[in-house]
Amino acid sequence: MNEIQKDELMKALHDCMEACNRCFDECLKEDDVKMMEACIRIDRECADVCSFTEQAVSRDSPFLDEYLKTCVVVCKACADECGQHDHDHCQHCADMCKKCADVCERFIA
Amino acid sequence: MNEIQKDELMKALHDCMEACNRCFDECLKEDDVKMMEACIRIDRECADVCSFTEQAVSRDSPFLDEYLKTCVVVCKACADECGQHDHDHCQHCADMCKKCADVCERFIA
Amino acid sequence: MNEIQKDELMKALHDCMEACNRCFDECLKEDDVKMMEACIRIDRECADVCSFTEQAVSRDSPFLDEYLKTCVVVCKACADECGQHDHDHCQHCADMCKKCADVCERFIA
Amino acid sequence: MNEIQKDELMKALHDCMEACNRCFDECLKEDDVKMMEACIRIDRECADVCSFTEQAVSRDSPFLDEYLKTCVVVCKACADECGQHDHDHCQHCADMCKKCADVCERFIA
Repeated sequence: MNEIQKDELMKALHDCMEACNRCFDECLKEDDVKMMEACIRIDRECADVCSFTEQAVSRDSPFLDEYLKTCVVVCKACADECGQHDHDHCQHCADMCKKCADVCERFIA
Repeated sequence: MNEIQKDELMKALHDCMEACNRCFDECLKEDDVKMMEACIRIDRECADVCSFTEQAVSRDSPFLDEYLKTCVVVCKACADECGQHDHDHCQHCADMCKKCADVCERFIA
Repeated sequence: MNEIQKDELMKALHDCMEACNRCFDECLKEDDVKMMEACIRIDRECADVCSFTEQAVSRDSPFLDEYLKTCVVVCKACADECGQHDHDHCQHCADMCKKCADVCERFIA
Repeated sequence: MNEIQKDELMKALHDCMEACNRCFDECLKEDDVKMMEACIRIDRECADVCSFTEQAVSRDSPFLDEYLKTCVVVCKACADECGQHDHDHCQHCADMCKKCADVCERFIA
């Protein structure tokens, strides 16, 4: 993976983490917070996995394939959950998660 | 700090992280989840800070004092918030946070 | 997974993280530090993966199987590397990594 | 802090983390790795602190001031250590650490 590819991958992971944390924050402010329970849980999970993987990319981890595979699983699950809700932050988060999963899949060796 | 002291400190941090994550999980299952918003947020924050600090202790970080001071601030804030709710998981979490803050304070050089 | 099993799993992950961080620390103090390059790298990697997974166990993550599978891969690689060096800290680290990999494997659903 | 400011802060933290992890990686490849011992240790520490803080910014943590203060301390220490070595990766890391410390200081409330 060259530097441009690493930057692309880290940007996708960062943007996904940011969207997940925003969605987590906004979901907790919603009136129908009970309906957002699953969304809040998976937002946190996905943000943590993306943050971990972002740092792993920056240190050229030899286990990047393992981390990326996990990232794809969690990002897709988060996109599925968030995609069911009409809130803008959920729809944006679903988009970022799908994009991140796509980019991660492309970089799995 | 000797090995016994390190173990005591890591145990307090671990137990606090565990109590915070359990409280996070249980708060999201409550019917009155809207009332638990602040609790859910600070539970996540405190779990992350304790987890970070637990690993910093295990690697004898030269910045342990800084991390412990932050840990005390976050644990006390979490204890204050959780202590306001009657749920068993909140009361248990408040106890673990207070204990963790005490242990951390004792080990600040 | 019941509470006793969770504690067993978190203990194995914690002990492995601790052994990896100690090995990282001690390897950097060795005179033959150049020979320890691979060991230093994988110690850090394994400590980070175990720390992440320890917290995931405490929050009953639905993605625990994915994390545990990754943990097994990294712990086994760390055990292989550390097992090649005669230093006590390397041998101890290899033992803890093997044990952690065994415990993780047992809990993969 | 508005979105533009958050992006500026997260970028500084990300760039610093990346420079620290690159420096960690390159230091371990150097022939004079024994001389790089302190640099390797603080690179890891600083990368972890920046990564943690980057995520804290993205979730609008109420404890951001505490994290930023710690970040300033660790970034300055890393800049001091790396600045003593002539390797390009050390000089680049020192620059990124100084810049990150400056940006963090500006955002402490």
